[in-house]
Amino acid sequence: MKLPSPYKLKDIASLINCEFEGGNDHVITGMNEIHMVEAGDIVFVDHPKYYDKALQSKATTILINKKVECPAGKALIVSDDPFRDYNKLVRHFQPVNYSLKQISETAKVGKTSIIMPGVYLGNNVTIGENCVIHPNVVIYDNCHLGNNVIIHSNCVIGADAFYYKKRADYFDKMISCGRVIIEDDVEIGAMCTIDKGVSGDTKIGAGTKIDNHVQIGHDTQVGKMCLMASQVGVAGVVVIEDGVALWGQAGIRSDVRIGKGAVLLAQAGLGEDIPAGKTYFGSPAGEARAKMKEVAALKMLPDLIRKLNEK
Amino acid sequence: MKLPSPYKLKDIASLINCEFEGGNDHVITGMNEIHMVEAGDIVFVDHPKYYDKALQSKATTILINKKVECPAGKALIVSDDPFRDYNKLVRHFQPVNYSLKQISETAKVGKTSIIMPGVYLGNNVTIGENCVIHPNVVIYDNCHLGNNVIIHSNCVIGADAFYYKKRADYFDKMISCGRVIIEDDVEIGAMCTIDKGVSGDTKIGAGTKIDNHVQIGHDTQVGKMCLMASQVGVAGVVVIEDGVALWGQAGIRSDVRIGKGAVLLAQAGLGEDIPAGKTYFGSPAGEARAKMKEVAALKMLPDLIRKLNEK
Amino acid sequence: MKLPSPYKLKDIASLINCEFEGGNDHVITGMNEIHMVEAGDIVFVDHPKYYDKALQSKATTILINKKVECPAGKALIVSDDPFRDYNKLVRHFQPVNYSLKQISETAKVGKTSIIMPGVYLGNNVTIGENCVIHPNVVIYDNCHLGNNVIIHSNCVIGADAFYYKKRADYFDKMISCGRVIIEDDVEIGAMCTIDKGVSGDTKIGAGTKIDNHVQIGHDTQVGKMCLMASQVGVAGVVVIEDGVALWGQAGIRSDVRIGKGAVLLAQAGLGEDIPAGKTYFGSPAGEARAKMKEVAALKMLPDLIRKLNEK
Repeated sequence: MKLPSPYKLKDIASLINCEFEGGNDHVITGMNEIHMVEAGDIVFVDHPKYYDKALQSKATTILINKKVECPAGKALIVSDDPFRDYNKLVRHFQPVNYSLKQISETAKVGKTSIIMPGVYLGNNVTIGENCVIHPNVVIYDNCHLGNNVIIHSNCVIGADAFYYKKRADYFDKMISCGRVIIEDDVEIGAMCTIDKGVSGDTKIGAGTKIDNHVQIGHDTQVGKMCLMASQVGVAGVVVIEDGVALWGQAGIRSDVRIGKGAVLLAQAGLGEDIPAGKTYFGSPAGEARAKMKEVAALKMLPDLIRKLNEK
Repeated sequence: MKLPSPYKLKDIASLINCEFEGGNDHVITGMNEIHMVEAGDIVFVDHPKYYDKALQSKATTILINKKVECPAGKALIVSDDPFRDYNKLVRHFQPVNYSLKQISETAKVGKTSIIMPGVYLGNNVTIGENCVIHPNVVIYDNCHLGNNVIIHSNCVIGADAFYYKKRADYFDKMISCGRVIIEDDVEIGAMCTIDKGVSGDTKIGAGTKIDNHVQIGHDTQVGKMCLMASQVGVAGVVVIEDGVALWGQAGIRSDVRIGKGAVLLAQAGLGEDIPAGKTYFGSPAGEARAKMKEVAALKMLPDLIRKLNEK
Repeated sequence: MKLPSPYKLKDIASLINCEFEGGNDHVITGMNEIHMVEAGDIVFVDHPKYYDKALQSKATTILINKKVECPAGKALIVSDDPFRDYNKLVRHFQPVNYSLKQISETAKVGKTSIIMPGVYLGNNVTIGENCVIHPNVVIYDNCHLGNNVIIHSNCVIGADAFYYKKRADYFDKMISCGRVIIEDDVEIGAMCTIDKGVSGDTKIGAGTKIDNHVQIGHDTQVGKMCLMASQVGVAGVVVIEDGVALWGQAGIRSDVRIGKGAVLLAQAGLGEDIPAGKTYFGSPAGEARAKMKEVAALKMLPDLIRKLNEK
């Protein structure tokens, strides 16, 4: 999330009543998750295991629950509960505001685009030219669609990330303030969900085509000209490079990367990166030829065991 | 289903033109499926294989297709077709009544709750305080939501159970007359379905968080503070105890129980109970460490077979 | 797709500015995909690998990208881009026409049927008697429902086929002009998608019952009295004969056939035909007893490898 304008460190810290360490001129321009941060951003960290990662990330302000040594050119904001205070900042800059009109007054739709009956467009949604949004699609606040985008019926674009911190006796929700960006020439089948980014953007690259019932998690980046068959599930913070094909019911764990032109076969369950151009298969997924050898060998196993027992 | 008031045995029997056996004072207060019955309930049974289970259940009235010995303190109603007559009783006490208003006149919504555009609330739906029901959610008749519940767009709460009896040349539908009960602080992602109970309630325990595209079958009981990732499928009559985590695309057969704090990993297919605290994996699912050993062993199998053949 | 009336070969060819070969009296009555063609139809083919199949199919007019020998009694239309020109013909006979009314003026609904709030019915949709269409269901243009059909909330019937031709730098969409035909006594759970045929019909046979979140691809033929559990995914151009049962989360590749009364167990991934009456299991799926032996053998494999290593 970009802030509406650059803020000074001390002003941000005072919004959440925290001490801070850093120069008077230290400027904050946005806030984001550790996976997505850039210079100017606040990142939060509340576990020593991840301190180094946060301190050495591109973020220039670290909201942290311990006074540690501050890296040169960066700033710290010290909070007893960085998760809570990060959420407070998000809510400050993006106050609760549910549009109760079916098409929000701040939604902008290209003149040549067709919005069919029952469609809901939230605050600040923008839709380019020559799009077709089929009946009963829901697009949450702040999502952006390019030109020539087709969204089939009952899709939900921009629902909240599935992201909670476990407290002693409840799950504390990370407030999602990111967006979904859908580039030109994308077609999305009926009944798909594409969650908004937690603080960044979930993106679907130009020319990508998605079949029905597909789930794309928060902050996931899908490249250009990818294909996803029906019922594929992609968790959050996944990177899918250009020209990737995911076949039916394949599932992808969070925080993996699929290289350019790679293929994930039907029902595969991916928990690791795929290099460019490779085909993976199985659950857990591995390189397809090796997996197919396993399938063939497994067919021979009952007989093999019987023979070994007869010896 | 509770009857609107206590009924006498002979009055219920006369509604379906059946003979009965039992005391003049025998009282019926509800009707339910064998998995969910309590004292006062009617249960139905039409196969000798299940006679004993029905007769010895907590149900105090048995709608049965044979005159058998009646257990002490219980009653029998003898029908040539208990399934048909059970349905007749359901329809008598819950006549067909589709509300054609978008928000039924008998729906009750807490003052601090937000009902967004396109939401449908059926007859007798109740929604507590501080809830957000996102656009185009559908809540069928008689469902109850607690406080602080968030339902994301296009969810369907309370559709009919997938429950049919095979007749000679058609499937005979069990009429669903149960409800869905969603306790406080539950959040449900976009595009989820939670079916109503057949005659009892499907329940989602307080604080549970559910991701997109999840299916929960009829009469399933989900405990408190569970997590379910996207595209999980839970069949009917499943019991999920508190603090359970189900990861993406996992599937659960009907009538199993998952113990407190257990974990079912992504894409697992569960056909048996999981004890408390255990982690399961695979399809069919088993204890995760054993299954991971199988995965590792399978990787070695093609080479093993090659070597054995070379001997 | 049937043409509105029979056309002469030369008139069709002139619509797309192509040369043709065939008799003056050669008549064209429809157009369809290679899997579904009948006498009178145009079929298109643009790869030498499939020339013979197209030329020998039941289609009597072949839209092809090379002048080949024309089979007796048939006709050729020669195009530099048959895919593009097939789409042109589709668009000519079925011009873009999105109905922006919630219930199209050309939709026909039986008097005893109930259409609940938020339902969208496209152009030329027909719904028989005694149907219930639950809230927020979307039915695209030209779909037909028989009598006693129940469609639960948020289903999408008749969205476009997931069918693209890969061009150098984009995916070229095959325009879907087919329909969905749902026969009598079918019940479809919440959140299902049934895609229209590309040029033919997707069909759900009488008495079939489908649970929530099921995907049925374009041109698939489902027989009578089938059962499909939740989250099943069926690709396009699949043939499912009568009385088949597909259990939860099973997936089926395009262009396979499942014989009468066959069963596909939960989470199975089917890539080949199943003969009538057989039960299949696993991913990739095979005959269930053989697969269960593999599962049992795999459980013994880690110990077997350990013992062999100890020798």
